[in-house]
Amino acid sequence: MVSTATLILLVIAFSIFGLLFAAYLVRWVLQRPTGSEAMQQISNAIKEGAEAFLRRQNRTILLLAAAFAIVLFIGYGFIRGHHDFDPVSSSMQLAGWITLSFVFGAACSVIAGYVGMWVSIRSNIRTAHAALSSLNDALRIALRGGAVSGLLVVAMSLLGVSGLYALVSATGTVEPTKIPLLIVGYGFGASFVALFAQLGGGIYTKAADVGADLVGKVEAGIPEDDPRNPAVIADLVGDNVGDCAGRGADLFESTAAENIGAMILGASLAAAAEKAGMAFSAGIVGVMMFPLVARAFGIVASIVGIMAVRLDKEEKMDPMQALNRGYYVAVVLAMIAFGGASYWLLNSPAAPNAWWHFFLCGILGVLTSVAFVYITQYYTEYRYAPVRLIADASTTGPATNIIAGVAVGLECTWMPTVVMGAALLSSYYLGATSGLPHAGLFGTAVATMGMLATAAYILAMDTFGPITDNAGGIVEMSQQPEEVRRKTDRLDSVGNTTKALTKGYAIGSAGLAAFLLFQAYMDEVVQYAGLDLGLPFKVDISKPVVFVGGMLGAMLVFLFSALAIRAVGRAAQSIIEEVRRQYAKLPRVHDMIQFPADFKPDYGTCVDIVTKSALRRMIAPGLLAVLMPVSVGLLFRVFITKADPLIAAEAVAALLMVGTIVGIITALFLNNSGGAWDNAKKYIETGALGGKYLTGPGGVKTKNPTHGAAVVGDTVGDPFKDTAGPSIHVLIKLLSTITLVLAPLFL
Amino acid sequence: MVSTATLILLVIAFSIFGLLFAAYLVRWVLQRPTGSEAMQQISNAIKEGAEAFLRRQNRTILLLAAAFAIVLFIGYGFIRGHHDFDPVSSSMQLAGWITLSFVFGAACSVIAGYVGMWVSIRSNIRTAHAALSSLNDALRIALRGGAVSGLLVVAMSLLGVSGLYALVSATGTVEPTKIPLLIVGYGFGASFVALFAQLGGGIYTKAADVGADLVGKVEAGIPEDDPRNPAVIADLVGDNVGDCAGRGADLFESTAAENIGAMILGASLAAAAEKAGMAFSAGIVGVMMFPLVARAFGIVASIVGIMAVRLDKEEKMDPMQALNRGYYVAVVLAMIAFGGASYWLLNSPAAPNAWWHFFLCGILGVLTSVAFVYITQYYTEYRYAPVRLIADASTTGPATNIIAGVAVGLECTWMPTVVMGAALLSSYYLGATSGLPHAGLFGTAVATMGMLATAAYILAMDTFGPITDNAGGIVEMSQQPEEVRRKTDRLDSVGNTTKALTKGYAIGSAGLAAFLLFQAYMDEVVQYAGLDLGLPFKVDISKPVVFVGGMLGAMLVFLFSALAIRAVGRAAQSIIEEVRRQYAKLPRVHDMIQFPADFKPDYGTCVDIVTKSALRRMIAPGLLAVLMPVSVGLLFRVFITKADPLIAAEAVAALLMVGTIVGIITALFLNNSGGAWDNAKKYIETGALGGKYLTGPGGVKTKNPTHGAAVVGDTVGDPFKDTAGPSIHVLIKLLSTITLVLAPLFL
Repeated sequence: MVSTATLILLVIAFSIFGLLFAAYLVRWVLQRPTGSEAMQQISNAIKEGAEAFLRRQNRTILLLAAAFAIVLFIGYGFIRGHHDFDPVSSSMQLAGWITLSFVFGAACSVIAGYVGMWVSIRSNIRTAHAALSSLNDALRIALRGGAVSGLLVVAMSLLGVSGLYALVSATGTVEPTKIPLLIVGYGFGASFVALFAQLGGGIYTKAADVGADLVGKVEAGIPEDDPRNPAVIADLVGDNVGDCAGRGADLFESTAAENIGAMILGASLAAAAEKAGMAFSAGIVGVMMFPLVARAFGIVASIVGIMAVRLDKEEKMDPMQALNRGYYVAVVLAMIAFGGASYWLLNSPAAPNAWWHFFLCGILGVLTSVAFVYITQYYTEYRYAPVRLIADASTTGPATNIIAGVAVGLECTWMPTVVMGAALLSSYYLGATSGLPHAGLFGTAVATMGMLATAAYILAMDTFGPITDNAGGIVEMSQQPEEVRRKTDRLDSVGNTTKALTKGYAIGSAGLAAFLLFQAYMDEVVQYAGLDLGLPFKVDISKPVVFVGGMLGAMLVFLFSALAIRAVGRAAQSIIEEVRRQYAKLPRVHDMIQFPADFKPDYGTCVDIVTKSALRRMIAPGLLAVLMPVSVGLLFRVFITKADPLIAAEAVAALLMVGTIVGIITALFLNNSGGAWDNAKKYIETGALGGKYLTGPGGVKTKNPTHGAAVVGDTVGDPFKDTAGPSIHVLIKLLSTITLVLAPLFL
Repeated sequence: MVSTATLILLVIAFSIFGLLFAAYLVRWVLQRPTGSEAMQQISNAIKEGAEAFLRRQNRTILLLAAAFAIVLFIGYGFIRGHHDFDPVSSSMQLAGWITLSFVFGAACSVIAGYVGMWVSIRSNIRTAHAALSSLNDALRIALRGGAVSGLLVVAMSLLGVSGLYALVSATGTVEPTKIPLLIVGYGFGASFVALFAQLGGGIYTKAADVGADLVGKVEAGIPEDDPRNPAVIADLVGDNVGDCAGRGADLFESTAAENIGAMILGASLAAAAEKAGMAFSAGIVGVMMFPLVARAFGIVASIVGIMAVRLDKEEKMDPMQALNRGYYVAVVLAMIAFGGASYWLLNSPAAPNAWWHFFLCGILGVLTSVAFVYITQYYTEYRYAPVRLIADASTTGPATNIIAGVAVGLECTWMPTVVMGAALLSSYYLGATSGLPHAGLFGTAVATMGMLATAAYILAMDTFGPITDNAGGIVEMSQQPEEVRRKTDRLDSVGNTTKALTKGYAIGSAGLAAFLLFQAYMDEVVQYAGLDLGLPFKVDISKPVVFVGGMLGAMLVFLFSALAIRAVGRAAQSIIEEVRRQYAKLPRVHDMIQFPADFKPDYGTCVDIVTKSALRRMIAPGLLAVLMPVSVGLLFRVFITKADPLIAAEAVAALLMVGTIVGIITALFLNNSGGAWDNAKKYIETGALGGKYLTGPGGVKTKNPTHGAAVVGDTVGDPFKDTAGPSIHVLIKLLSTITLVLAPLFL
């Protein structure tokens, strides 16, 4: 038997180590030189814009969170009243813990997002400067800058959960296995912030991108990141606020929610095993703590992986290869630690095979994430058939390009679905055959943990993307020599790949984590109400009420996506109008703008317009996601009968599950069609199908309409892959966590 | 107590009356004059192309159906073996009945589709000729030509079901309430044909349309339906084979499947009521026959409605108004008949309120269909905000047009979902409070019947669309005076509206019918296996196996749509290449083709290319839809355990239900975004946002890029709204019927 205190201290110690290491990386990055004044000017403009946006966004989000916290407190403290089966002795206590953990989760998520972005907008210029001399240095600065986000997110989520656990535990009034029920609010708070951060950032980044491209590249005919484009700074700001801040918050809540969900399931499993006389040697609390311990070991594995990334001496190595090597180091170490943790905490003398069954589940999770990465590559890289098909279809114009892209997006859902289904069923099977009773679900939970074991490394690779993107922009705008640009372009293209891959990873883990979370929800409903009524809790979607709940869940995903995509379209239109206004008075020859040498665009107005627009338009989809499951749960209480007291909770479960399924495939559709369109355009830009320009008789260069058609597809894909898609990842988990927190209200 | 024979004879008599009336309409239409030789030439070319395609398509479909029939017979007759709970005494008998009804259903569906199209390609020229003198005559010819399809479909499906029932009943060896279990194959045969017909026709029509538009309108700058476009005949043929033949087969199977599903549920209800001592006065068979009787009365109501359509003397009336008046006549009569049938057959002395509760359910069904029509109008007509938004977004180019259209399509799913949910829950509630035990589900079934009560009229309005479209094409191509064109244009625009509305109606009825069908499936599983094992059959999607079944169902819809959309894109590309080849040698001035006066395009090659392409490409999505539920059902038998013997059937049920939910919202997305794009373009063509051409300084006309952007959206929407969307309607019902037929194999 391991003592609870030992385990908690261990987890807290590892988390703090992770944070300290992140601080070390920050210092290391900040010590790198910052480059010429021209570069600093640009970098400062980006910094200013990003910080101003994030400050305003955080203010809005915290206000919304505060309002929701009050509602939560009133709902639990005054309206619902106390029930005998509650884990604490008064409604005030219940309300207090749930609200406290919600607020704490929200605050941690805001901090993690903010600090991550703080570092990334300081890493970009240092990466750009390093690229002047050494690709290896540039690579390492970008990755380590990104790693700060990654470590922060994982360590803070772990610290938050274990800290809250320790706090509740210290009161000595709550049964240990019931503690997770009180701290589910932490994951919900994190989701709440993540949703708005991802929406706001996603709308910002793509509105600026689409706006800048449509007037800059298409109408004015100037290249990407050209300083004469008034929207260019807004576009570079967008990379930071959308890609780093958004995804940071997203993965923060993935790990937080998954930690708590796995703890709830672990506690149930251990209790069932003890009842059956097959107790674990580490005790119930040991099993419950397993997810936290495994995650804590994973931090160290990720750190080693990150530090292992370097190019060979001559810098001839593909940077992607260097990143992959680091990833494999992290994966192997994480799996060894995972095996150790399984052996230590999941050992039951009565079921000697159980620990390695669970260990295999963890490995299955890792393999699933690798499969997702390969599938994403197949559908979004121009080495493979799908992107080639889209490029070919561009020869007959934008309409056929769009049709081909939509077809690829819809098609690409099949393999991930099959892989996810196979992973769920085989980890369930491994759990079920572990020798312990009712261990199938815990098997799927362990697979999820395996998938998330290297989250810190993945997140570092993800934030690597916007940092290199920004570095490229700074190099381009400060007009550095061609040779430097080639270096940053190499890094940038690797960054595009890592961004696409991590999206595949994120949706895969969202799918598995959601399954785990709604098992936790059902467990919670049973704990709150089912057991004492002697009713098994099933989610029978053949009941009309439950079926309608499922329909509403599917619809929610579509409506949410509609609002997110429309927000980008609208915000982009206001940018376009602003740029056109700034260009209106410039002289033109043959419709081509002739820029005067002293032309100075007003970057500030564009930044301001898109900031306001994004903040205003993130509210509707965000509130929809929060309020719809709540309303269904409360409204459907009218269907509660004596024979069917759980019907409202059941309808919400169907909303959650069908919403999750539809969310996963819709996100896959949006992410991958967007990625494929992007790369079809890039493929043509490499010179395929005529390249960017056609040379007519007499050497006259004209725009290649095939490329023009591909640009349309790329633009359509922008809000798909960077606004709606990633927001759905968060939506899925928000649905799970919100229902977890509010389940008692639906009974 | 009404005797079974009386009821069956009544239904058969009404069906035959419907067929005779259809024959009368055929004679009436054929007696109208056929117009000038120029018109006949064009009409003959369409006729030839359409008949050649349909012949080849039917050959392919019948081959596939024959192969499947053999598999079905072997599966039931030899592989599955006999079970005690089977409704007949030997496996050969079971295999025989199921296969016979499958073959019969397939054959009837082929005949209904063929005859419907036979009439419609003869109505088009007569409508065109009538338009030379009288709009009223033209309207009536088009509607009555369309009504042949409508009546044929409804009467034949009714005759098929009642005839098969009579046949099985005549053997005297099967319990009456078990007969529906034997004839479920009829609906499946119909679905099987409908799926391939809709896919093949849908691919044909849109490939020809997209191909003709992209080279004709966009590249060569010639108007729609211009005789110099080599793809124009293929396009006109497409209207017939896609819109009439496809939708005819679709609604044939809707009514057939719904009839049988409602009979199964009616039999269950009546048996339960009798057990509870609350027997219906009409007996179990009376309740079971209620769906057929109500439908039989509906035929007469539709006939009266169709004959009531005429314009006022001066022909100033809006033709849409005339059609609406006919619809309201049909609805009111159908509801009176529905009330009468409810009072006659659904009367239980022990539950005196039951009959009018069910009657209200029927009215609820009608109201739901009206709500769907209005919602569709709101999202797809340019009088309302959504289409205006898309048109506005076109001013910033094709990319923003597509983004806006996708957002509208995703958004438009919410209202129909809420309406459908409300209809399901309130009809369930009305049934549950009828005073009879377990009558909730039958309430939802009756609502579906109400919705489908006027199917014949709706289908007449639907086929009206391609007939007027063709008439317009004939008038345009034979270069009739402007005044005549205006008349056919008025009819054509009404036809576009009715096509959009009937699509809304079709998806609404598909949703309700599917719910009914999977209740029938569950009932069947219980009858086959559940009862004697004493297990309640639930579809608990919180079980991993069942959840994965649901995931696969959702994915199926996306993959299926991908294949359908891609097929159109590919086939269109081959048309474009062919037209470009024919245009390659023509002289050009400033990139504009200068057509020689004696230019004669080769229509035949285009018709041939698209025919081959459509037939080849319909196979993959069709087989996917048929094979996937079967494979899941058979594969997932590995998860069958003693404790959970129904798990495979349960996973299939989840596939079916989640697939249905996702199918409904995906079809809504595809249909309405396509319709909205189409009308955004038409709105700009009315002169809004600059109209089709801009007049520059000096009166030079240039193409309006806003219109060009809207054309891109319209083209993208084509395969959405006319290929993938309508095919999903059929997919939904195919899933239900295939699982109904194969359920016993999953146990």
